[in-house]
Amino acid sequence: MDEFTDFDALRAACLNLREGSDSSAEAVRQRQSMLTKPPGSLGRLEDLVAWLAKWQGRPMPRLDQVDVLVFAGNHGVTRQGVSPYPPTVTTQMVANFSHGGAAINQIASVAGAHLRVVPLDLDTPTQDFTEAPAMDEAGFLRAVSTGYGAVSSGCDLLCLGEMGIGNTTSAAAIAAALFGGGGSRWAGRGTGIDDAGLARKIRAIDAGLDRHAAWANDPLLIAMALGGRELAAILGATIAARQFGIPVLLDGFVCTAAVAPLTRLATGALGHTMLAHVSAEAGHRLLAEALGLKPLLDFGMRLGEGSAAALVVPLLRAAVACHTGMATFAEAAVDNRD
Amino acid sequence: MDEFTDFDALRAACLNLREGSDSSAEAVRQRQSMLTKPPGSLGRLEDLVAWLAKWQGRPMPRLDQVDVLVFAGNHGVTRQGVSPYPPTVTTQMVANFSHGGAAINQIASVAGAHLRVVPLDLDTPTQDFTEAPAMDEAGFLRAVSTGYGAVSSGCDLLCLGEMGIGNTTSAAAIAAALFGGGGSRWAGRGTGIDDAGLARKIRAIDAGLDRHAAWANDPLLIAMALGGRELAAILGATIAARQFGIPVLLDGFVCTAAVAPLTRLATGALGHTMLAHVSAEAGHRLLAEALGLKPLLDFGMRLGEGSAAALVVPLLRAAVACHTGMATFAEAAVDNRD
Repeated sequence: MDEFTDFDALRAACLNLREGSDSSAEAVRQRQSMLTKPPGSLGRLEDLVAWLAKWQGRPMPRLDQVDVLVFAGNHGVTRQGVSPYPPTVTTQMVANFSHGGAAINQIASVAGAHLRVVPLDLDTPTQDFTEAPAMDEAGFLRAVSTGYGAVSSGCDLLCLGEMGIGNTTSAAAIAAALFGGGGSRWAGRGTGIDDAGLARKIRAIDAGLDRHAAWANDPLLIAMALGGRELAAILGATIAARQFGIPVLLDGFVCTAAVAPLTRLATGALGHTMLAHVSAEAGHRLLAEALGLKPLLDFGMRLGEGSAAALVVPLLRAAVACHTGMATFAEAAVDNRD
Repeated sequence: MDEFTDFDALRAACLNLREGSDSSAEAVRQRQSMLTKPPGSLGRLEDLVAWLAKWQGRPMPRLDQVDVLVFAGNHGVTRQGVSPYPPTVTTQMVANFSHGGAAINQIASVAGAHLRVVPLDLDTPTQDFTEAPAMDEAGFLRAVSTGYGAVSSGCDLLCLGEMGIGNTTSAAAIAAALFGGGGSRWAGRGTGIDDAGLARKIRAIDAGLDRHAAWANDPLLIAMALGGRELAAILGATIAARQFGIPVLLDGFVCTAAVAPLTRLATGALGHTMLAHVSAEAGHRLLAEALGLKPLLDFGMRLGEGSAAALVVPLLRAAVACHTGMATFAEAAVDNRD
């Protein structure tokens, strides 16, 4: 199934989540105890292998095909003066991606990952959410379906990212609608807005929350009214990855806000995801804590594009390489503990 | 010069430090401001490139040759029952390294780094430092010189690591001698010692501090009396790297303690080093703070072998790839800020 044609089908997919394989994770722990190292001494690398095994459903996880999907969208709320960059930059950056000139191109290459960029109707920005829902129902479902359909079932690990001038405003609005506190709690400087711009951003978020308050108890309607197409696509891709048994690396604030509605629909909905980093964007640390996601890196990055998600791929490769390549105490004739 | 034949020559090398190239770092900052990303949005990746440039003395740093040097030594203090593993494991693990079966083999391979293991007189452990200086002057200088001589001048980035049953006891003793607080402040569980073993470890450290108290104001004599050959070699390699213009990635607690004496001899002596991670070993966070080193990762690792140093190499590769491979705003015809 590649298309969600109505909300009921989407809701059903959000509730009907595939379980991970506890036996695969347990097999990882068993093998780890035999490898030539003190128990637990590879720390989080050991946890990462168990996590990959659980969600791939393989006792020996692999990272043969690592994909980076970057979704791009344009936002009507930019009319409120929430970004120092003009919305034309979204399209220009998509061109930059296709010519190999952006950060994500370089990082994906180092990671040995395949990058695909999916622009979503860039010539027709979403509605300004201070005045109307960002998307109508059909438009939202189309964007979710595009994200769902973009995931290759043969993928071993999926990195998700986004590009969209104005989209930290959408992300902050979603976070505020889900977790409370209003614009001032969640708005940050995005690509680098000044004080006056930050004040406009907070006002825009609060106006959006006010306008769409009737939907505040429905996570999917929140995503439709306050989000954007690239956020909806990330949500769809995350659902697809769960169904296909693909672990997901989440990137920054926008990416995290995009999938946050899923946790309101089903506990453990983000079990197959790992947060690559905590961004310098103001609301991200708070959002990660609210979702119980523990970031891998804390590098003060705030670029988006899936840059941090792709950046951590080699750490996972190293974790898997240790698991599959290390000798056991018996194989190496190394004495175990006294 | 590959040999330190007397303490005066070693002291002179420790004091006579090559400066980094501020103009190369500045050239990096200039270029970063033109690349297609919001200013500063790659966070610490940008700092890492400037750091590499400064210490390589190249405005466009490169990582063509990345070396991992793992020094191995045996410790007389193991007679005090400070480790759950027998000292035979040091030699066995060196064999495991040479057969490709250890964690560092896998991680170095993922990092595209060349691994070299240097065993130091494993059949003749150092003296038990509770009873005598771990090394005499000639033995200490020989180990420092071995480390110095092991560094290839053509290397672009050097990862340092160690293997030595008992060496977290030596590391804690050095840290205590330099920064105070005694064994209870610095001793951790190493490879996983139990409560009784930890008590023995603290007693051994305190006995060593007491025995060699007369040398407490001389950082090199501290390293000689309480350290080990692999720690001395790491110190020597770090001096060589500074002289050759090679940035260094430090690994965990033992590696950090090994170079700590240098900062007591000259401010900024560790400028060309970066701490790969903060270890789960109890004293490491404290020692990193005392030295002003900000770790890249916090993964709860505590293996040594240079494992965390090699692990972060791909992060630096990504940083350099962004710097050299990204398009500028002008090249990509992307609009800059309004």
